[in-house]
Amino acid sequence: MQGQSQQQAYDRGITIFSPDGRLYQVEYAREAVKRGTASIGIRTEGGVVLAVDKRIRSPLMERTSVEKIHKADDHIGIASAGHVADARQLIDFARRNAQVNRLRYGEPIGVETLTKDVTDHIQQYTQVGGARPFGVALIIGGIEDGEPRLYETDPSGTPYEWKALAVGADRGDIEDYLEANYEEAADLEGGIELALRALAEVNDGELRPESIGMATIPTETETFTEVEDDEIDSYLAEFDLLAAEDDEESDDAAE
Amino acid sequence: MQGQSQQQAYDRGITIFSPDGRLYQVEYAREAVKRGTASIGIRTEGGVVLAVDKRIRSPLMERTSVEKIHKADDHIGIASAGHVADARQLIDFARRNAQVNRLRYGEPIGVETLTKDVTDHIQQYTQVGGARPFGVALIIGGIEDGEPRLYETDPSGTPYEWKALAVGADRGDIEDYLEANYEEAADLEGGIELALRALAEVNDGELRPESIGMATIPTETETFTEVEDDEIDSYLAEFDLLAAEDDEESDDAAE
Amino acid sequence: MQGQSQQQAYDRGITIFSPDGRLYQVEYAREAVKRGTASIGIRTEGGVVLAVDKRIRSPLMERTSVEKIHKADDHIGIASAGHVADARQLIDFARRNAQVNRLRYGEPIGVETLTKDVTDHIQQYTQVGGARPFGVALIIGGIEDGEPRLYETDPSGTPYEWKALAVGADRGDIEDYLEANYEEAADLEGGIELALRALAEVNDGELRPESIGMATIPTETETFTEVEDDEIDSYLAEFDLLAAEDDEESDDAAE
Amino acid sequence: MQGQSQQQAYDRGITIFSPDGRLYQVEYAREAVKRGTASIGIRTEGGVVLAVDKRIRSPLMERTSVEKIHKADDHIGIASAGHVADARQLIDFARRNAQVNRLRYGEPIGVETLTKDVTDHIQQYTQVGGARPFGVALIIGGIEDGEPRLYETDPSGTPYEWKALAVGADRGDIEDYLEANYEEAADLEGGIELALRALAEVNDGELRPESIGMATIPTETETFTEVEDDEIDSYLAEFDLLAAEDDEESDDAAE
Amino acid sequence: MQGQSQQQAYDRGITIFSPDGRLYQVEYAREAVKRGTASIGIRTEGGVVLAVDKRIRSPLMERTSVEKIHKADDHIGIASAGHVADARQLIDFARRNAQVNRLRYGEPIGVETLTKDVTDHIQQYTQVGGARPFGVALIIGGIEDGEPRLYETDPSGTPYEWKALAVGADRGDIEDYLEANYEEAADLEGGIELALRALAEVNDGELRPESIGMATIPTETETFTEVEDDEIDSYLAEFDLLAAEDDEESDDAAE
Amino acid sequence: MQGQSQQQAYDRGITIFSPDGRLYQVEYAREAVKRGTASIGIRTEGGVVLAVDKRIRSPLMERTSVEKIHKADDHIGIASAGHVADARQLIDFARRNAQVNRLRYGEPIGVETLTKDVTDHIQQYTQVGGARPFGVALIIGGIEDGEPRLYETDPSGTPYEWKALAVGADRGDIEDYLEANYEEAADLEGGIELALRALAEVNDGELRPESIGMATIPTETETFTEVEDDEIDSYLAEFDLLAAEDDEESDDAAE
Amino acid sequence: MQGQSQQQAYDRGITIFSPDGRLYQVEYAREAVKRGTASIGIRTEGGVVLAVDKRIRSPLMERTSVEKIHKADDHIGIASAGHVADARQLIDFARRNAQVNRLRYGEPIGVETLTKDVTDHIQQYTQVGGARPFGVALIIGGIEDGEPRLYETDPSGTPYEWKALAVGADRGDIEDYLEANYEEAADLEGGIELALRALAEVNDGELRPESIGMATIPTETETFTEVEDDEIDSYLAEFDLLAAEDDEESDDAAE
Repeated sequence: MQGQSQQQAYDRGITIFSPDGRLYQVEYAREAVKRGTASIGIRTEGGVVLAVDKRIRSPLMERTSVEKIHKADDHIGIASAGHVADARQLIDFARRNAQVNRLRYGEPIGVETLTKDVTDHIQQYTQVGGARPFGVALIIGGIEDGEPRLYETDPSGTPYEWKALAVGADRGDIEDYLEANYEEAADLEGGIELALRALAEVNDGELRPESIGMATIPTETETFTEVEDDEIDSYLAEFDLLAAEDDEESDDAAE
Repeated sequence: MQGQSQQQAYDRGITIFSPDGRLYQVEYAREAVKRGTASIGIRTEGGVVLAVDKRIRSPLMERTSVEKIHKADDHIGIASAGHVADARQLIDFARRNAQVNRLRYGEPIGVETLTKDVTDHIQQYTQVGGARPFGVALIIGGIEDGEPRLYETDPSGTPYEWKALAVGADRGDIEDYLEANYEEAADLEGGIELALRALAEVNDGELRPESIGMATIPTETETFTEVEDDEIDSYLAEFDLLAAEDDEESDDAAE
Repeated sequence: MQGQSQQQAYDRGITIFSPDGRLYQVEYAREAVKRGTASIGIRTEGGVVLAVDKRIRSPLMERTSVEKIHKADDHIGIASAGHVADARQLIDFARRNAQVNRLRYGEPIGVETLTKDVTDHIQQYTQVGGARPFGVALIIGGIEDGEPRLYETDPSGTPYEWKALAVGADRGDIEDYLEANYEEAADLEGGIELALRALAEVNDGELRPESIGMATIPTETETFTEVEDDEIDSYLAEFDLLAAEDDEESDDAAE
Repeated sequence: MQGQSQQQAYDRGITIFSPDGRLYQVEYAREAVKRGTASIGIRTEGGVVLAVDKRIRSPLMERTSVEKIHKADDHIGIASAGHVADARQLIDFARRNAQVNRLRYGEPIGVETLTKDVTDHIQQYTQVGGARPFGVALIIGGIEDGEPRLYETDPSGTPYEWKALAVGADRGDIEDYLEANYEEAADLEGGIELALRALAEVNDGELRPESIGMATIPTETETFTEVEDDEIDSYLAEFDLLAAEDDEESDDAAE
Repeated sequence: MQGQSQQQAYDRGITIFSPDGRLYQVEYAREAVKRGTASIGIRTEGGVVLAVDKRIRSPLMERTSVEKIHKADDHIGIASAGHVADARQLIDFARRNAQVNRLRYGEPIGVETLTKDVTDHIQQYTQVGGARPFGVALIIGGIEDGEPRLYETDPSGTPYEWKALAVGADRGDIEDYLEANYEEAADLEGGIELALRALAEVNDGELRPESIGMATIPTETETFTEVEDDEIDSYLAEFDLLAAEDDEESDDAAE
Repeated sequence: MQGQSQQQAYDRGITIFSPDGRLYQVEYAREAVKRGTASIGIRTEGGVVLAVDKRIRSPLMERTSVEKIHKADDHIGIASAGHVADARQLIDFARRNAQVNRLRYGEPIGVETLTKDVTDHIQQYTQVGGARPFGVALIIGGIEDGEPRLYETDPSGTPYEWKALAVGADRGDIEDYLEANYEEAADLEGGIELALRALAEVNDGELRPESIGMATIPTETETFTEVEDDEIDSYLAEFDLLAAEDDEESDDAAE
Repeated sequence: MQGQSQQQAYDRGITIFSPDGRLYQVEYAREAVKRGTASIGIRTEGGVVLAVDKRIRSPLMERTSVEKIHKADDHIGIASAGHVADARQLIDFARRNAQVNRLRYGEPIGVETLTKDVTDHIQQYTQVGGARPFGVALIIGGIEDGEPRLYETDPSGTPYEWKALAVGADRGDIEDYLEANYEEAADLEGGIELALRALAEVNDGELRPESIGMATIPTETETFTEVEDDEIDSYLAEFDLLAAEDDEESDDAAE
């Protein structure tokens, strides 16, 4: 185990190895991810659910402008956590790759293929000098060959496939909840319920509709679909997660 | 929480992550924004209002040369706060993109599209080496599909959409005022009043016409329009915000 | 032997020689390899066996997404240990070279040729500035001219040929076991048994099927073949290595 | 407020932000401007007057070789203060832009357009690495659409429009004098008198003709015209500013 | 003579001169050579003998994969000591040059020409920035115009011609032995005996066949020829240098 | 005023501004000029005289190889002081520009034009990174439109026009002498006498012909002409400046 | 005069000026020259003599491989002292330039022209970043227009012409001897005698033929001619400089 002063020697300038084989700039980029509010992905038989915690800085800010869920292609959605501007770069990269795939092969890109295109792009920023790593994690979900698929990209450029996961703040607590409650055979609404309950778990058991973003890619339609605010409201009411209206504004501005 | 000496290690040279996942150069660029006088954007049903605090260094300086409001296209205006020369680069970038859009698609560029072109450009300066971030924040307002839209770009390259916002000095105090008094359904003059009252709030309750810049993009005309000095004078009189004439020169030269 | 403070002087920035002729960045990259779980390669008369320890971070993570065994070509497989994203870059490089060889010469690439293409690529990252070394070791195994061949690439870019080897965590202990028990004339199942017993040696003598990945390239078929989970299960039962089911989840997330 | 040792951390190498949002290299370039002798610009109805303090290092040096006033185009003149060699680069840049404008559009370049071309060029040297900022300020004056215009460029790349201004040494004292005595409606000779009296103000009330450079761009002729030495002599006599002849040589060599 | 702390100042980053005119990075690369096991070259009338000490890390490692002798062309062999991956780069460079010579001039490349091609390539890595020197020394031997020739390349890029030499560990002791026992008029077997006895001199007087690599380029055949293991065994027996079989494994892994 | 330790912070690496607006690398390059022996330029009605102090390191060195006076074109000569190899680069640059001017415009280049081409080239090395400034000053003299002209270039890239000047060692003392004795209306021989007497002033009142270099560009002939050794000898005798012959060798090797 | 610690500040990284106007990297490169054994050039009426001290590291090293005298063209030879690999680069550069001259102009290159081509090339390595200076001095001698010419290039890129000179170790002592004994009107053998006696002066008055290299370019033949070993032997005997044979091996390995 190293002390503070030695650690400093390995985390400046370009991304290089520390004596114990770690890449500090990549680990610090992971900290940037943790500074973002949580995003959740759930894969059920009924499809993929993406749900995000959208903490709004001010009631004058448009909720829609806090973009944490993006459509990458008709059949693929991406949720992000961490550095917002970095996320936009990767989303653009993903969209272009999806588009090129349709043009070149006449068919939608696979979820796994798209994920690995993105992670290989991320890896370059951890090995070649002149740039810093991306400070963002993505959850990439969609339907491939009729099957729902759910992936994670992290700042090191490693792809992982998940049944259900969270990235960003409180990841550990949310994953504990998911592990205890996940059921693969659930239908889409089951996935939505699990996602909302997991989010509520780290929000004192209740949620405000305006601080939730949600999208689904149902196995049946294979189509990325944003869940409207009133639907979210209904779900929260149904699951008894709706927060009281008395203190509407959030103080915590991190996102 | 880190001490002073360790912080220094992460804010020199190129933009890299600190151990807690922050980008200091971007945060310092935000300080450069705060060093500039305030700019305000208000979105009402009647259109978008841009209003800026133009502190003039000397009575011999031409007021018009302190450019904080710019026309980006017929239907879009931009107000800036922070490093003036940096703002000019981004305004030029925005104008070229607006022009290219008209040439390529035969139609005016969307306010959101233009904003995101600008923020993606800004993000590059926070990730790739060999340059510093832009030390400026922009308020981009205009009419898109008949609807007024209002956006912010910050030095990290993140786009936000707002109903009403301030950037630059005293942002916090102005936003408090805006939150308390904003009415979305107001007409354009309501927006002008709110903007001027918010500016007065951080200027001891009174304003001098020569230190105010203002432009509107009315929903009806969809046309960027500078508000003339005598009109500003009339508004200030009407709202009882007109400063006494006795001490005409401002000492404070920051802009 | 040098003290701590002097060592620091030679391991920052680009890869340069220390006064005693060492390349610290390469040695630190070797530490990155040791941080990965073990991968094993066995060459017998019956063919090549690749076996890897796949420690899964969570039961919700798809086992298949922890990719440590890759097919490089019909007749060649690659197992890796260390930095996963770096491994993917080298695997891609290897696959492209294999493909080009088939296109250019109309025949499968030799295992040795492919290994040396990869190591020469790795070496460049240890000599030319602007990038860090690869933090990964590969085991490249396959059939060449009817003979099983087994190679290692390390972060310095040196190729080695082995009868049996391990890379990653616990390399020393596993190699001791392999040296004591290796029989070159064994058939493929003999190789599989040796690989599993060696892995069990550093896992308290028992293994869980879900944390094992395995593939073979039999001398007879010359075809890369993944060993299915139920087959692994059977092998573990046959060799009396099957772990009890009571504590299914692994705490140790390093991979 | 920061101490000495911390400040050092932000002013080395390339131009980056300090924690309080300042660009030290740009501020130091402003110091280089202050090291140069003063240059003055006056805009009256009669036209633009440029006047400079030409401190000659030795009686053997040709006065004309201390170039602080330059013709940029027939209708535009530029006075500089600060690093002489840097000024020459910007003058060349301005001349080329003026020439290109005539070739491309068949008409003289606007004074504002030319100024902004120059400031945008200057800004690049404050943001992109590999070069230092320009250590010079320019006063750009001329006639545009029949109106006299007067601009300043500073090392940050910000353009300002003025009625009357000074750059270089003693800027503050000269501007105080200008503010107290400026009359916009004056004719050209009024502008000349103001310029000379302002210069005399920081030279013990008297001037030597050989240390003064002067040029005008009259509104009527729209033509850059150098004021000859004997004319300057007459003006100084007329305004009772002529220094006694007894100690002809100047000791102070800064320019 | 300089102390420790001052020396550090000249051996970081790119290769530059120290105050006493030395290139530390080149000297440290020489240390990398010394970390490798010894390689020997002998030139007799009968031809060139290359002999190397191949310390194998493990009995499971294939001896042939420790490549220290390489065929550069039909008539030229190269033995190396030091950083193995660096050696491979230079061998590849040499082979390409030899091949190009045959294609361009229709004749085999001269041993001296090839050596100087290699050393000029090496020198570039000691003068131009952005890369470190090569950490390897080569012995290049072959037949040119019917005469055996033997050269050395060192990390500075200097070519030397030798009658007999050693590079790598124990160079000094082996060269003492060679100087005392070398006979230029010997036949090829005389060269082989000298090479083996010199290697034995630094191995307690006895050698194991499996840790020896040997090749010859006889004057008569002008053809690079690897000496087979059983031949080496016979030679060792003949010269009474054969080690006892009792402790087969070597502990010392440096190569 | 700054202390020693702070100064160090601003004079390393590339050329950047110090807090007081100075460019240390340029100032140090001026020191390199002072380390060179003196060069003198005199402009009279009769033409331009260039005279240099050629301190020869050894009697075995050819005097002509200490090149401090160069012909740039038929009508222009250049004398240098400072870093000899740097001077050669600038002379080459000047010659090429003079040649190009003749080719392009069919007429000889102006002395002022040539000077400014050179100074603009010099300035680039003080602003753009990756190179150091030129450590040399030039005296460029010639005939332009029938008039003798005399210029100086310094390491900052500033051009000056002079009646008479010195660069290099003892500049101050020589210029004092020139100021006291210069007569513009002198003929060429008057210029030669002044130049030699000024050089003698800083050489104990006497000169050795072999340590003097001299050239003229007479107004009448407009042709660069080297003054032969015997002529110099005659001039020294005529002006009673000839040193005694007893101690022929100079100890001081600076040039 | 500066102390040790301050000096360090100016001699790292790229070649920049120190506060007193020196280029430390160039001065250190001169130290690299002094670390090499001496090379001598003599110009007499009979032609040019090049003589070098070839200290051989071992009796097994071929004397001819210590190359300190090179043929640049039929009529030009070059002797070097200092970093051998650097010398080879400059010799190659010189040979290519000589060859190009013959191709382009159909005549042999002048000795002065060739020298200045080389020094201008050397200068680039002292001004532009990314490489270190050349650590070698060359003596370039040959016949031009029927006259023998003799030049020196040093690491700063300055060319000097000499009657006789030495570079490398003991330069001062050898030049003292040359100054005392040089006769310009000597024939070629007179030059050879002077060169050998000067070398002997710093070798205890006696020389071994095998440690001497020599070449001549006679005025009559204008052809570079190596002096054979037996001729050197004869000369040494004739001049009574032949060392006794008893201690054949040299300990001192610097060259």
